[in-house]
Amino acid sequence: MEYIDEIASLKDQISFSGQIEVPDGIDKIVIAGMGGSGIAGKIFQDFYTKKPVTLVNSYEIPEFVDPKTLFVAVSYSGNTEETLYAVKKARDKGAVIRAISSGGSLAELVDDTVIVPEGFQPRSAVGYLTIPLLRGFRLFGKSEVEKTKELLVGEDMHKDPFQKLADGIFSTKRIPVIFGTPGFNSVAYRWKTQFNENAKVLAYSTSFPELNHNDTMALENTYRKEEFYFFVLTHKQMEKEIADRIRITSKLCKIEMKEIEGDGTSLFSNVFTLIHKGDYISYFLAKKRGIDPRNVSIIENLKRELRESN
Amino acid sequence: MEYIDEIASLKDQISFSGQIEVPDGIDKIVIAGMGGSGIAGKIFQDFYTKKPVTLVNSYEIPEFVDPKTLFVAVSYSGNTEETLYAVKKARDKGAVIRAISSGGSLAELVDDTVIVPEGFQPRSAVGYLTIPLLRGFRLFGKSEVEKTKELLVGEDMHKDPFQKLADGIFSTKRIPVIFGTPGFNSVAYRWKTQFNENAKVLAYSTSFPELNHNDTMALENTYRKEEFYFFVLTHKQMEKEIADRIRITSKLCKIEMKEIEGDGTSLFSNVFTLIHKGDYISYFLAKKRGIDPRNVSIIENLKRELRESN
Repeated sequence: MEYIDEIASLKDQISFSGQIEVPDGIDKIVIAGMGGSGIAGKIFQDFYTKKPVTLVNSYEIPEFVDPKTLFVAVSYSGNTEETLYAVKKARDKGAVIRAISSGGSLAELVDDTVIVPEGFQPRSAVGYLTIPLLRGFRLFGKSEVEKTKELLVGEDMHKDPFQKLADGIFSTKRIPVIFGTPGFNSVAYRWKTQFNENAKVLAYSTSFPELNHNDTMALENTYRKEEFYFFVLTHKQMEKEIADRIRITSKLCKIEMKEIEGDGTSLFSNVFTLIHKGDYISYFLAKKRGIDPRNVSIIENLKRELRESN
Repeated sequence: MEYIDEIASLKDQISFSGQIEVPDGIDKIVIAGMGGSGIAGKIFQDFYTKKPVTLVNSYEIPEFVDPKTLFVAVSYSGNTEETLYAVKKARDKGAVIRAISSGGSLAELVDDTVIVPEGFQPRSAVGYLTIPLLRGFRLFGKSEVEKTKELLVGEDMHKDPFQKLADGIFSTKRIPVIFGTPGFNSVAYRWKTQFNENAKVLAYSTSFPELNHNDTMALENTYRKEEFYFFVLTHKQMEKEIADRIRITSKLCKIEMKEIEGDGTSLFSNVFTLIHKGDYISYFLAKKRGIDPRNVSIIENLKRELRESN
């Protein structure tokens, strides 16, 4: 499969039928995962706040993990060192363990593993990795999937504008900075990581309103301002308060922000359409740079050297 | 008080006697706060994992907030719009509410407010704002305070090296990027925000091992690499695994990381000495740029315009 086809398959991924089984009696949730797999937990956190959700992006798990904790390990390969280590610790503490993976050691270790299709880069499998969490907790309905599917292949997803955006970033070699808004922190972070992994450019994300308490002071006065490209991720249901903050920040700091708007009327459709737009822009930026967007050989080299040093 | 004296007062702030009262029977904690006040919650999260800790950096509170939730609002001024809004919502849901503030509307709204000394910039009061949380949960001992106090005025805190570092960043106008390590995510973020607010330069933070799953791909290959200044925050008790990651990442990506090491042997001493070093570097960078490190008038302008647009 061509890498762009992996990206385009998001429209099919969102109707994936896999779901984690959520037992009764749990009072908190921990989701462990790194990078392109860990994003599933971050997205879940933007959808679900009925119980505390704690993310583990390292080896160590919180002290509070106990038999009333649902511990979900997400690793596309099933062989992520940090996540496997965390699962073993969670098991020692008696947590209820679930996993989402295409196989690997994780699927052997955890009976309740939702198996997702093989053959993707982990970051291109974002739908497969996220849907089982959202579905397990019943956080979307069938009509939202249908509607989002239409949007993902629709006019707004026409690739020309994204190619032009990538060309614009490339022509001035700018560093993307993505401003999220409430409920969309995970998507802003997803964009950052896609610029990193696909286009191999540094990129950063922060979010309104928190950024008004720190970044704003720099945005007004920093050196090298013209070397950054500022995106802001919005949607049609956004609170006026946040829209005001965006407008006033742009004016006071004298910065242009490229607004990218989600499509549809649900959190589900906005999240997945915004993710998709970022995927395309970072893909086209890679192509423009003459870089293979799929290649992440450096992380393989890093893992090998880590093993050798032990 | 001169601004540098505000910064230097951290040595006194860490023995602040204020503490929040932690009731029996709570099973989760929410800490609301923005920017220079919100950092207290982030630091707490690095110290305490016995119960789930959820941070609120916006207006909305999680659905799970209930009478078994300890809800701590941190606002130095006591007038932070987002935080006041969140407190009212938490009260409606019956949460146990505590606050940390120098006064303002928050102290009027919440009976159980730990009152901290007035007259500081919120970000310079980081000790006053954090200690009541750590003390309330008994997360440090008296000897750690004494030891850290010695370290904060000791040889390692000699200001010359920090001034030289700031000169180095300034001479090439570089953008600071701070790499945290496990347990020190909050400190890396604190450094970012201090570069923003004191020196008015853009700055970003990410952390090992998560950054090995995304930033690393960019660090190898990005354009404009030489325009960033990479810090890594370490300590003498760091796991070999993380030290290996730092060394190998630096080698494979061909980047120099300036290592800044915490002092002492406890999390408490390492966190506060590392915070202090970042405070000085960002202060000296402001001075070098001829910028007033205290001035944050833009956020006042932003607040005024926000009010006017309502």
